[in-house]
This record gives sequence, C-alpha cells and structure tokens, in this order.
Amino acid sequence: MEVTEKKQCDVLVIGGGPAGGVCAVTAKMNYPDKEILVVREFEVQLVPCAIPYIFGETLGCSEKDVASCGMAAEMGISTILGKVEDVDTEKKVAYTNKYEITFDKLVFATGSMPFVHASLEHALAYEGVFTIPKNKALVDRAKAYVDKVEDVVIVGTGFIGIEMAMEFREAGKRVTVIGGSKHILKGPFDPEVALEAEKILLEHGVTFIGEDRVVEVLDNGGDSIVSAVQLKSGRVVQAHAVILATGYKPHTSLAEKIGLPLGHYGGIWVDEYMRTQNTDIFAAGDCSARRGFITKVPSKVMLASTSAAEGRVAGSALFGLKYLKGFSGTIAIFSTMIGKSAFSSAGITEEEALKSGGDIVVGAFSGMNRHPATIPDAQRQFVKLVAMRQSGRIIGGQIIGGNETGEMINIVGLMIEMQMTVFQVMFMQVATQPMLTAAPTNYPLVMAANMIADKLKK
Amino acid sequence: MEVTEKKQCDVLVIGGGPAGGVCAVTAKMNYPDKEILVVREFEVQLVPCAIPYIFGETLGCSEKDVASCGMAAEMGISTILGKVEDVDTEKKVAYTNKYEITFDKLVFATGSMPFVHASLEHALAYEGVFTIPKNKALVDRAKAYVDKVEDVVIVGTGFIGIEMAMEFREAGKRVTVIGGSKHILKGPFDPEVALEAEKILLEHGVTFIGEDRVVEVLDNGGDSIVSAVQLKSGRVVQAHAVILATGYKPHTSLAEKIGLPLGHYGGIWVDEYMRTQNTDIFAAGDCSARRGFITKVPSKVMLASTSAAEGRVAGSALFGLKYLKGFSGTIAIFSTMIGKSAFSSAGITEEEALKSGGDIVVGAFSGMNRHPATIPDAQRQFVKLVAMRQSGRIIGGQIIGGNETGEMINIVGLMIEMQMTVFQVMFMQVATQPMLTAAPTNYPLVMAANMIADKLKK
Repeated sequence: MEVTEKKQCDVLVIGGGPAGGVCAVTAKMNYPDKEILVVREFEVQLVPCAIPYIFGETLGCSEKDVASCGMAAEMGISTILGKVEDVDTEKKVAYTNKYEITFDKLVFATGSMPFVHASLEHALAYEGVFTIPKNKALVDRAKAYVDKVEDVVIVGTGFIGIEMAMEFREAGKRVTVIGGSKHILKGPFDPEVALEAEKILLEHGVTFIGEDRVVEVLDNGGDSIVSAVQLKSGRVVQAHAVILATGYKPHTSLAEKIGLPLGHYGGIWVDEYMRTQNTDIFAAGDCSARRGFITKVPSKVMLASTSAAEGRVAGSALFGLKYLKGFSGTIAIFSTMIGKSAFSSAGITEEEALKSGGDIVVGAFSGMNRHPATIPDAQRQFVKLVAMRQSGRIIGGQIIGGNETGEMINIVGLMIEMQMTVFQVMFMQVATQPMLTAAPTNYPLVMAANMIADKLKK
Repeated sequence: MEVTEKKQCDVLVIGGGPAGGVCAVTAKMNYPDKEILVVREFEVQLVPCAIPYIFGETLGCSEKDVASCGMAAEMGISTILGKVEDVDTEKKVAYTNKYEITFDKLVFATGSMPFVHASLEHALAYEGVFTIPKNKALVDRAKAYVDKVEDVVIVGTGFIGIEMAMEFREAGKRVTVIGGSKHILKGPFDPEVALEAEKILLEHGVTFIGEDRVVEVLDNGGDSIVSAVQLKSGRVVQAHAVILATGYKPHTSLAEKIGLPLGHYGGIWVDEYMRTQNTDIFAAGDCSARRGFITKVPSKVMLASTSAAEGRVAGSALFGLKYLKGFSGTIAIFSTMIGKSAFSSAGITEEEALKSGGDIVVGAFSGMNRHPATIPDAQRQFVKLVAMRQSGRIIGGQIIGGNETGEMINIVGLMIEMQMTVFQVMFMQVATQPMLTAAPTNYPLVMAANMIADKLKK
C-alpha cells in the first residue's frame, strides 16, 4: 500500500481546465499570501475548444493543442497530478490515492464529460465509435482510428460536431452530419443564420441530415466493428467511424459523493459568487449549474469562456466579497469558423426570445466587412440584433462575417452585459478602417440598431 | 448668364461625405415626411479612408474606391451636384451657380481639406509635390505622376502618411517618411507602441526620419520640378515626388462667409446636438469644431467614423430633441494595418493622460491572438489599457494584433463610452474561439484590466 503524503494549502482547486486554471491565478492575484494548490488528472491538458482542429490539417496532432500552465507556476501556484477521491468537509481534508490535503477553501472545477443518449450507449462498445472527451490519450486514439477510414458519421450538430465535420472533410473523408432537428447549431442561431452555415457545409461536400436521428449503430454481423448507422426514418448511412458529438454533462461524481446539492441539468448548485451550499466550497466551470443571463432559466451552455469568467468570480470571492461582482448567468457568447465564414452569437435568439414569451423586435443588416467592397478578401457581413420592444434593450445578436467576427460578437456581448438599448447603440462611436472593418456610414451594429429603433417608432 | 432654377426642401445638407451622407439618411429615417436634399460637389465621391490604397496594389486605382450612394436614392433623398456659394440665413435660401434652394434646416458637412505648413506652401507650385485631398481628379493626377518615379518622400507620420508609405513600398518605390517628432503616429499611440510600427516600416524597407523636419522643398535649379527635400538638420533627401500628408483643416469658407462662429482649430462651433449658434443650422463632420470625449479639450482628430456618428446625432436632432443623445466629444477610435499587423487606439494614451495631469494607472498584456499558439497564422497580440487611479475608469486603450484588432478596439471604445471601470472589465463575458480570438484564460482585455486592478490594490 502506498504511503500517504500530507499536504496543506489555503485554497484547493480540483481541476486544471479553464475554470480551475483561471480561478487559481485569480485567487493568487487577489490573495498573494495564500497557498493555492491545483490538483489535476492529466500531465498534458488539452485546449478544449481546439480539439476539433487536431483531427484535420489545422493542427493535425494533439501535441499542438497543449494548454500552457506556465503562468501558474510563475506565480507560485502549486500543482500536483492526481484525482481527488474523497473530501472530509468537516475536517477540510481532501484525499487522492497519494495525498491527504488539508484546505481552507475548496473549488470544484471538475469540468464535463461527453453525454451520450441512453439509446446510443450500446454503441460505445463498438470499435470505431468515439466521443470527444478532453483527454489526450482518448483523443489520440480516436484520431489514429479515423485517420485510416473513409466514411465518417458525426452525430450531433453543435459546434464540436460541425467543426470536426469540416476538419474531416478537409482531410478528404466522406462526412455525414446527423442531427435531430431541422437546422444545425440550434440554440445559438435562428434558422436563417443556420441555413447559411448549412450552405457552406454543402459547398464543402459535407452531407447534413436534419429532422432524422440515429436510432442504432450497426456492426458487421456481430463483430462489434461499426459499419453503419440506422436512422429513425429507416435510412442507413455507411460509417467506418462514428463520432458521438451529442454534448457534455457536468462531471459531478465527487460533489455528489460528498453531498453537495446539484442544480438544474445536473451541475453543482452555486450562487452568484459561485459558492455551493457549503460556503467554503465553490464550483466553477462546466461542473456548475448555469442559468441564462437574460432569461435566468437553467442553461446547458458549456463554453470555456464562460468557465473562465466563472473562475474569475470564484477566485476573487474565496475569502469574502471583494468586488461585489457576481456571475449573473451566462450570456452565451459563441463564435466559430465554417469554411471562410465566421458565425457568432451572443445572448438569445429571436426564436428563443419568442419561445420565452418575449415581446421583441429584431433588426438585421447585411453589408460588407471591409470598405470599399473592392478591398481584397472583403466578404459579406450579416448582423442581426434582438431587442425588447418596450425598453429597446438588446438581448441578443448573431453575426456572420470574416475574421473580425470573433471580436465583433464580443461587442454585442458587452452591449448585453451593460444592458444597452438600441438608442445607445445607434449613436455609438466606432473605429472603421478599409482593411479591417465595414464602412463608417454602414457600420452594421449601428445599422441593425437603427432598424430596430425605426420599427419601435411605428 | 445661366437661368437659376428654384428648389425647395426641408433639410438641405451641404456635402456628401460620411457626415453628410449619414446625416441625410438618419434625417429621412427620423422624419420620413421631410424633403431631404444633399448638394455635393463631385459626381464621384471617394471613400476617404481608402485613398492610400489607391496608390499601391491593394486597390490600384481610384475607380475601386468609390462610395456608393445607393441607399440615399432608395430612401427618397434627392441629390444635386453643385457648390453652395452663399446662404441667406434670414430668408433661408442657399445659392449655387444654378439653383436657389429654400430650406428649413441647413446642415454643413463640408468636410476638410489638406493642411500645409506655411513654410512648405511654396512647394505646392512644384511639379511632383502633392497633397491628398478627397478629390478623384487630384488623386488620379498624383497617382499617375508617382507611378512613374522611384524616390518618394512623405512628409507627415499620421495614418495617411504611413499607409501611403507602405503602399508605395509594396509598389517597389524607395520611400522615406519624414516626421517632426521622435515617433510616428504620435497622438493615438504611446512610444512603445509606435516603436513596434516603426520596426515594421524598417522591415519593409521604408526609411523613417524622426526628430527632424522638412524646411524646404528643392527643385533642379529653378525648373520647378521637385528633386529633393532639405531637412532642418542640413540633410538632403532625394525625392522624385513629395507627398505632404501633414493633416487636414476644416473646410469652412462658406460658414465664415455667412458669419457662423468658429470654434477651436477653425472648425464651425457646435453644441452637443451639432447645432451652430444659429439653431436652424447644424454642422457635422470634419468641418465642425471637436473636443475630446475624455479630456473635453479641443481636438484635431479627423475620422470618418467620428463624422458618421456626428451625422447621426445631427440627423436625429434637426426638428427638436428626439433621443436626448448628444455627441459628447470624439473618443478617437482608430485602427490601421501596417504590414501584417493591425494597430489601433481608443481614448487617450498614457502620454496624453499624464500631460493632462491625469492620475492614472496602466496595464499591458502580451499574448497570442489565437489559441493555442500553434493555430496557423496566429500572431502576437498586445493590449494596453489606461485607467484613472481613483475610480478605475478606463480612459484609453491601444492594441496591436491581427485582423481581429479592428473590432477589438471597438470593444475598448465601448468601454470608454459606457464609462466602464477595470473592475467591470475584469469579469466581462466574452466569446473565445481558436481560429478567431485569444484564449479564454488569457483574454487580453481582461488580463490588462486585471493588471490595473492589481496595481490599484497596492
């Protein structure tokens, strides 16, 4: 039996992903005299959002997708490898198979793991069927397998599924994406925006099957090697490899074991300062229960950027309320590239707003992302804003454009966070430059806000 | 003698540049029943900010830099070509050489014209010496001349000068930029940021001479064809063509003629709603007198985006205060590309803040604009924020990065406009995506804000 080594710290962070890493760094900045200790499972931590790019030519291997932990070490944050298996919350001691760690504050940043519908769990035993966990060894195994095959089926139409589809396609494979609803990227995008993304998939030769779903994964007569998927409609799609990209679920086994109450969708219940019901224990990131910034209803959104923001809140609230800045729910700001176009979304869509009973008005503007339109590589830019009819307050936005889109959607995110109205956006000051942005006369965020203001007058 | 044709309108806008165009469109949106008439001088209106790109390979000709006026016509805004030569402000009649136009409200959007130091005015008579007015015929003439020569000297180190230097260099010319101060782009950038831009000029083979200035332009023994410039230091630089890019001055001859009071730096005095001292007469854009958003002191900043914002304010305040949204001064949000790097600035620099007696703190963060850093085309990203020590309020920012920079600086602009503090920015929610942005754990605006907050604690 291994001898247990005793360790002591002021703050113990379980997990070294975006939430855990940011929480540790923030804690050290705010409480430089405190000992911060991070326990994480893997020597090599992948950058989660770039995992799809390992599978194609963008990165090409997991060695190029390694998160740097340099800053933590520099700041004097300790890290040990291991898995916390139990916690005595009374004595404030955590146990790994090697260490007994006493702590004052404990932070759960245990992240999430792939979610698979019960009806497809049988398929996980088949050779050639993979989920995409944030685990280098498992990602490497999936890549090695898929590299050798031709027909790939992706189940799921979220960002991970779509990004992987494009990467596999660039690598020359035949790719079919199968979703359970009419359009891809449901959630962040309204149908007319998703349709634009679907057009690009089609142009690149990716097959998308919506409004149908995989009911069974088939092998070759009992050999447990995947050969095809069977759809609800009866259709059978050949598959040498199947990626189940059907979302993630909070990783909460330890939290449950020690009796921390869970919230909606299985995440650890937390208040606005990321405190669990035991106020010496915090949770941040995908393992915590989230709600939407606008609707305040439970949210399944899992984004590294949201996790980082939560980690910052937790890390600065460990020893009392320092900034009185809580986390008021995820704005759900997303972006991705599909082909040469970026798609992004912040806040809630028109569809979701209407479903929530919102009395809303939308405005959309389509122009060019450079000016004049003759600038090399100029491309179309589409901006849609969603605002409340009574107050004019902006609650959502969607943008299609070029490489400027990733930061442009952050402007919309800030408008939502700062509770801005279209009347403020109409007059906002911006920089415009031929090589970098749309024209000053047609700056699309201002134009879309103007269109909403115009509708509000009538 | 030509017969005068009579015209009538509710709103007469003089000038078809960004301020005039946006003012007309905004007026029509806000007052659909009013007749809006724009008088402009040129059949073809150039997109002002892209004029430098006419001179190199980016656009290559002025025909590719034409502003579209489609929207105005579609909305029922009338346009006539001509030059307003006089206005009877009592009778509310404007006169061109062809039209007698009665109006209810008048908007000056007469723009700006090149400014040349008195000591260099003599050079304007020389063949091969050019300023860069927003006039297609004159731009074409300059381009045709410079196309045929090898040695080009650019006097002035503002955006126009630097952008033209890079374009000429790409076109294979020997280029020398001569400025009157140690660094280029003084005003929007602190020295350490300007230095990065200067390195790129050097790498591209552009010669920059700072801390010296042109005292005389020389010809070949009285032939009035430029041959060189003589510097204050005694140095002589050979020049087959000289571009005087030494700024612009408000175009106010008509305003002065009819007795409208001018403000600082020669612009037409306006209040926050862009009204001149005659409240039926408005002025917007480069012809109006500006002040800084932060310092409230007179500002020489001339940007199409500022002009557009002013045009929107004017166009919505013509017939009474509709939104109670005035123009509180220019935030001066800029961006440009120099080589493969974008340089941008918003608000005031550290240098300017200190000069104004500001008690400030700065924070800077340097990382990568994509994550992980192995993403193809990832490049360095540098963010500097300037904040007030007591309140933590953000008053300025500078960013160097890739093509995301143009919209990223607009986030900083919005922070300044919304009077955000570093304590808010520290916790802001953003989207991050490998192909489009920095990492969620190291999002540079948040990191720079964190660094300021950290300094404020001590």
